[in-house]
Amino acid sequence: MVPHLATALNGPLLDFEKKILEATPSIERWFRLEWQEHTPPFYCSVDMRNSGFKLAPVDTNLFPGGFNHLGSEMLPLAVQASMAAIEKYCPDARNLLLIPEDRPCNASYWQNIARQMQIYRQTGLNVRLGNLDENATEVKTIVLADGAELLVEPLQRSANGRRLGLKNFDPCTILLNNDLSTRIPAILENIHEQTLLPPLHAGWAMRRKTNHFASYDEVVKKFAKMVEIDPWLINPFHAKCGDVDFEAGTGLDGLMASVDTILAKIRKKYKEYGIKDKPFVIVKADAGTCGMGIMTVRDSREVRDLSSKQRNKMTVVKDGREVHDYIVQEGVYTFEQIDESVAEPVVYMIDRYVVGGFYRVHQDRGVDENLNAPGMEFVPLAFAQQHAVPDVRAKPGTAAPNRFYMYGVVARLALLAASLELEKTDPNPEIY
Amino acid sequence: MVPHLATALNGPLLDFEKKILEATPSIERWFRLEWQEHTPPFYCSVDMRNSGFKLAPVDTNLFPGGFNHLGSEMLPLAVQASMAAIEKYCPDARNLLLIPEDRPCNASYWQNIARQMQIYRQTGLNVRLGNLDENATEVKTIVLADGAELLVEPLQRSANGRRLGLKNFDPCTILLNNDLSTRIPAILENIHEQTLLPPLHAGWAMRRKTNHFASYDEVVKKFAKMVEIDPWLINPFHAKCGDVDFEAGTGLDGLMASVDTILAKIRKKYKEYGIKDKPFVIVKADAGTCGMGIMTVRDSREVRDLSSKQRNKMTVVKDGREVHDYIVQEGVYTFEQIDESVAEPVVYMIDRYVVGGFYRVHQDRGVDENLNAPGMEFVPLAFAQQHAVPDVRAKPGTAAPNRFYMYGVVARLALLAASLELEKTDPNPEIY
Repeated sequence: MVPHLATALNGPLLDFEKKILEATPSIERWFRLEWQEHTPPFYCSVDMRNSGFKLAPVDTNLFPGGFNHLGSEMLPLAVQASMAAIEKYCPDARNLLLIPEDRPCNASYWQNIARQMQIYRQTGLNVRLGNLDENATEVKTIVLADGAELLVEPLQRSANGRRLGLKNFDPCTILLNNDLSTRIPAILENIHEQTLLPPLHAGWAMRRKTNHFASYDEVVKKFAKMVEIDPWLINPFHAKCGDVDFEAGTGLDGLMASVDTILAKIRKKYKEYGIKDKPFVIVKADAGTCGMGIMTVRDSREVRDLSSKQRNKMTVVKDGREVHDYIVQEGVYTFEQIDESVAEPVVYMIDRYVVGGFYRVHQDRGVDENLNAPGMEFVPLAFAQQHAVPDVRAKPGTAAPNRFYMYGVVARLALLAASLELEKTDPNPEIY
Repeated sequence: MVPHLATALNGPLLDFEKKILEATPSIERWFRLEWQEHTPPFYCSVDMRNSGFKLAPVDTNLFPGGFNHLGSEMLPLAVQASMAAIEKYCPDARNLLLIPEDRPCNASYWQNIARQMQIYRQTGLNVRLGNLDENATEVKTIVLADGAELLVEPLQRSANGRRLGLKNFDPCTILLNNDLSTRIPAILENIHEQTLLPPLHAGWAMRRKTNHFASYDEVVKKFAKMVEIDPWLINPFHAKCGDVDFEAGTGLDGLMASVDTILAKIRKKYKEYGIKDKPFVIVKADAGTCGMGIMTVRDSREVRDLSSKQRNKMTVVKDGREVHDYIVQEGVYTFEQIDESVAEPVVYMIDRYVVGGFYRVHQDRGVDENLNAPGMEFVPLAFAQQHAVPDVRAKPGTAAPNRFYMYGVVARLALLAASLELEKTDPNPEIY
């Protein structure tokens, strides 16, 4: 299915698409050289918003959980990319231990795990699932919609305590698909003989969105200079705001000030580009996931005047964790629509390669709201359909592959930012 | 388009498909380890024949010329694979010099070049075409069916004589798509500062099919042991026969003896498997290309009793070169059909990755004849359609992706053989 798009690609983005296409050899070479210096995360998905005048990543996920939403015709790409990744980390790997979420955000999560297992098996690995729940002693069976069964087995350390595996299964590589929202479980500490991907500090117990977007600022600055664009076209303003307690009502002045600052910056840019839309910001938990702890703010007084229910929603996120640090991010309208529902693209990468994507669609949400919420649906991005490689001669804004290429470029900028972010936040940087 | 296949997959191959699918993780790991030891050619295509009881590569092309026949949905795979390859050879590459055939086998060849240029551009390279014809002083313009133009520019060595390029174009990598049938042109000699792919001894001026198939014997021996199959199921018998002169009538006794030996070996195998078909061999120029210098032989007396026209066809091949060395190869029936025409699969690889394929179809040829001949047509292999990754649970012989995976495995065995062959025949082996 090719989604029906109602995107109003206009002025600045058309020009951006044109520049991106013309500069393809330079852009790809630039990425190639950056990947000589930086190691990409094993996998990554990037939520993006396209407002017609701006295309920006708004969230970079290092534990992507929607592989089942990619078109099946994209699978060979994913297999090939994961071959390249595995060869780098552990060329003689035979066994891969995949550690899924213990409490997934949504029911279709296990289809994602089944899909990932299929990809890694095809890569040349025996794949088994480990249960991060330390109280688990039995094998847990998960029955999928098609009747297939997944077995999630209790983790165990080897007799000498140096290795992590399952009963009769000693992996070379351990792949986390669990975002470690609350804490880093002891059983994952001190793994030195095996490759643990992504590293522990990529989990939300330690990771912060503001670190990511600070790295993204850096990456975009370099990239925008190369292709000669205003960095703002692909980068949302953001600010960090700590020590906020919605329940106690403390720290709200600081938050309001940040909101005002970002709104003022957006207003200035909108004026520069003649954009008539109303500026807004998104306030998000700096370490939140599953689309929780997120609100749209059009006026700074809104953060002061929350209802008690709203305050609670902003404070308590996944797994009951309390939040006091927030990121205030420029809101980017999404002017893409599928069947009159608001849609945003999500791009998936393995290693340094784009392997597919989908549209997240929500029929009850507005163009300035978070779509990662119950009721969302998924439509595969038509990457592999039609002529899957950009057509330089097409009129800007008219060819789907050209738009997807542009999405892939911006998503890879976020991927590169994640790579820098992980380097900078590494608690044991000597291993680099 | 999904080709309608009339293949009678029976006994031994069904069992082989089952074994291959079950052993996927081991097979992929085995390839991964082999590629740690051996460097794959930059690109390669393999002509295969599927007789229902046997699946074998019959020709391995190191200058593939049919990229235009791959489905366009396979392009992202080709781009990704060529990114992996370029990163290995020359990570900071900016310019690629592609040297096409000066006298292509067929008119659609230039569409292949246009397609390749598109792939390498997307890989992050500026691509220009060089004319191997040393007498060329002007830029040659080739107009494609869609009106696009290709410019083939005169080659030139740099002022100090150490580098090869074009006017105002200094490439890091030089990619030959010219099989050097007659000789190695002086302008390609002594290139030490740039990467020349594939190496000169891969050209037909030096390459011999019998060397390739000797390496293939080795590869298959190892592989067959791992998956526990009779190597014959994927390997045609072959023998080398030199000093043959069809015109002078000399050396024919030796050739007849070789034909008899191979026919006897096939007969024995057919008996073992209860195959009722009539054994045949293919006699081919040991260094031939473009489907020239090839005959089907069912009885050794046929090589003695050729008409004068047939003798000439076996002696004079591409670019007027005279042949005296032949390979006698077990003939493999092709029992695949598309619209009642005989078809054989051709699998394309870049670096160590399968990136697509097509069926070569010929409505005027029989199941025991060479299909690489005027009148042939091409139908893209449906790799990327349906569910592009094998389905282990499907009944053997029923799922197209499972068959294509099997084709991909056998094609990669031939690719690995080519890699070994190039190592062994390297005139300057110290560079490895």
